Amino acid sequence: MPTQFDPPSGTRDFLAAEWEIQEHAFARIRSVFARYGFEPLVTPAFERLDVLLGKYGDDGDKLIFKILRRGEHEGSGEADLALRYDHTVPLARVVAAYGSQLPTPYKRYAIGPVWRADRPGRGRYREFAQCDVDTLGTTSALADAEVICAVHDVLAELGLHGFRFQLNSRRVLAGLLEAFGVPAGLGPGVLITLDKLDKLAPDEVITELTGRGLPEAQAGSLVGALTVKDAVEQIRDALKGSEEGAAGLDEVDALLSLVGGQLPDDRVVFAPRLVRGLSYYTGPIWEVAAAGGAGSLAGGGRYDHLIEQLGGPDVPATGGSLGFERILMLLPEQGTGSSRLDVAVTIMDERHAPRSFAFAGAARDAGLRASVYLGSSGKLGRQLKWASDTGARWALIYGNAEEEAGTVTVRDMTSGEQAAVPLSGLSDYLADLAAGAEG
Amino acid sequence: MPTQFDPPSGTRDFLAAEWEIQEHAFARIRSVFARYGFEPLVTPAFERLDVLLGKYGDDGDKLIFKILRRGEHEGSGEADLALRYDHTVPLARVVAAYGSQLPTPYKRYAIGPVWRADRPGRGRYREFAQCDVDTLGTTSALADAEVICAVHDVLAELGLHGFRFQLNSRRVLAGLLEAFGVPAGLGPGVLITLDKLDKLAPDEVITELTGRGLPEAQAGSLVGALTVKDAVEQIRDALKGSEEGAAGLDEVDALLSLVGGQLPDDRVVFAPRLVRGLSYYTGPIWEVAAAGGAGSLAGGGRYDHLIEQLGGPDVPATGGSLGFERILMLLPEQGTGSSRLDVAVTIMDERHAPRSFAFAGAARDAGLRASVYLGSSGKLGRQLKWASDTGARWALIYGNAEEEAGTVTVRDMTSGEQAAVPLSGLSDYLADLAAGAEG
Repeated sequence: MPTQFDPPSGTRDFLAAEWEIQEHAFARIRSVFARYGFEPLVTPAFERLDVLLGKYGDDGDKLIFKILRRGEHEGSGEADLALRYDHTVPLARVVAAYGSQLPTPYKRYAIGPVWRADRPGRGRYREFAQCDVDTLGTTSALADAEVICAVHDVLAELGLHGFRFQLNSRRVLAGLLEAFGVPAGLGPGVLITLDKLDKLAPDEVITELTGRGLPEAQAGSLVGALTVKDAVEQIRDALKGSEEGAAGLDEVDALLSLVGGQLPDDRVVFAPRLVRGLSYYTGPIWEVAAAGGAGSLAGGGRYDHLIEQLGGPDVPATGGSLGFERILMLLPEQGTGSSRLDVAVTIMDERHAPRSFAFAGAARDAGLRASVYLGSSGKLGRQLKWASDTGARWALIYGNAEEEAGTVTVRDMTSGEQAAVPLSGLSDYLADLAAGAEG
Repeated sequence: MPTQFDPPSGTRDFLAAEWEIQEHAFARIRSVFARYGFEPLVTPAFERLDVLLGKYGDDGDKLIFKILRRGEHEGSGEADLALRYDHTVPLARVVAAYGSQLPTPYKRYAIGPVWRADRPGRGRYREFAQCDVDTLGTTSALADAEVICAVHDVLAELGLHGFRFQLNSRRVLAGLLEAFGVPAGLGPGVLITLDKLDKLAPDEVITELTGRGLPEAQAGSLVGALTVKDAVEQIRDALKGSEEGAAGLDEVDALLSLVGGQLPDDRVVFAPRLVRGLSYYTGPIWEVAAAGGAGSLAGGGRYDHLIEQLGGPDVPATGGSLGFERILMLLPEQGTGSSRLDVAVTIMDERHAPRSFAFAGAARDAGLRASVYLGSSGKLGRQLKWASDTGARWALIYGNAEEEAGTVTVRDMTSGEQAAVPLSGLSDYLADLAAGAEG
């Protein structure tokens, strides 16, 4: 592709085949969320700059696409608007703006592009779709369970297999630190390091923990408990020694029991090592691991004070986010999607154009996708080549012979078989083809 | 709404009810376009600034939302990207980029937001949806006819009535100027003034024409011919005196005959006064007038050299654009859309939460939208109020009495009638409700 016609760095043009795969996935996601009573929310592509700035940390702020002021203010080089960075800050603004007009609890999903000025790379884009689902206004564990079940159903509906939910709670993590005597001041840093247990060897993690000021014996027993074969049992035992830990464990077990009744066996497991990077979670947290360790497909948790921190009212909230780009890559192979037409109508003579045009209309009335040949060749071979390129299942041919006989030739593009259909019977014939095409 | 939580000026938040109306309309538009063999194209929200600048005239350039350079370049106050202003310039870029990878002819539609920094007003937004349909790569009048029929079918499918296509040709207009002896240099200006015949009195138009340098007698006969009762016949006669005019008339008549066979009688009329503001049209032009003079619903025409002017290859093209915001305002009243659930499941006792949660799952398995009560009240009245607020048709109630009897109470929220359904028969019962709900 000539470089000057590329889409901007990190963005993509979606031609028909790629877009149809996305749109098909979006439709399935929407239908699952609707089945749970989540409703759509669509906010503008841009927000006022002050709504976004300072919400994603210094690193996040740098990745915000800012929009220059306009008119006489353009010369100032200042920005007043910025492209949406996620769906959560707009949600906080909407909840603040519409308050009591919204249902209680407010269960909404958002599907649409967000923009981040990240360095583009393999599978990493500057414009990419995010799919969020959240319930605001309730502290009920049933809301957490609903989000998890909805996300599960989305992944299953999309045709994914072998994925697994890892469930933990921020309260379990707090209890863990307490049970192993980690000083409160070291807590956040220790959790960040423990989050690396999937990537680093236990020894490396212990080294990093001691570097953070944790005595080596403590670091060793903490990492040991998390990495032994029966780690989950050991941690369960250890948590009983902490009030917060025991409460967290109850929270996890209640959720396991709620969602366990809905989902296939072993689809959700307690994962005491799961930390999730974001600091705003306050209760249950979860992540969906793809089959074969292909990364995380979705994640979420409870974040009871985030909406207030983002400028909204102080409402409890729980939700999740689908890693849509990664999910797309794992989807089962789609059909080639190359078919644009069911019926291709040839035009052998300009004199016949109105009649051929009407044939295409009759095919559409029968519910088939149809078009006449729009090129300039009068040769049947060229026109049938076009018909084949469109993926059409049938070609309609009307030339002088057909004009004389009062028929139209319907050619099966797969078998090459042809039928001479009287003009008066064409609509019925097309309706039969349409009915057969659906079956 | 507290001002600081407003969406940015000229943009809108779409809560569920408004969004569902839009999404429903989008789905219908997509399905009609697909029936004609048009395929979707989705391009990024922003383009490189140089791709957009200079394409919309000086006034257009001022309305482009520009995106500030990032990182170390942010301080320069310079922009390098800009939000999409329409779907045509991105189309030209895509055709230039993908060339032979695209089907020939390339029939595509684009539905999505565009952004213009216009002064916001009633029905005028800075972020609004545009729906374009275009065929590139053919000079065939059948392509023009297809676009017109497709736009017609979209409007009909959306439920609009009484609208009418006004059809003209740039060649008719050129012939008209020739037939009335308008000097070539005055042509473009004269057309701009004639375009005002719908808003100004004939005298005012004559005055404006003489102001442009046209002798009063000529201005008078031109305006007279266009405004008399049998104007169309007079113009048809006058055009015979010009080669270009006669060719334009043939073009119009051929199109009228092609689309006339497909559309209801009088749905398309020859409108020799139709000019359409944009200078890039080269052949047939058309506009859709809403019933009762409520403005234009769609417009389009042939623009054989525009793609090249926009930076693409020199391919012939024809297409149309739907005035989506205006169409939305004219749509027949939609259902209130307030229903979020089919089945609302109460929870009378925390002990029953897992069972109630499973009931909701069973309802979803039956294809119904269902959720459990997520609030904190244990009172049946409050929970039934919630069920009613969600628009649910049925409430499932499971309390101590039901536990003892091994049943669940299914309450019809409209009639208030209740049935005691044995737990073992609930799935079948819900399946029956779902089947009845579809009927």
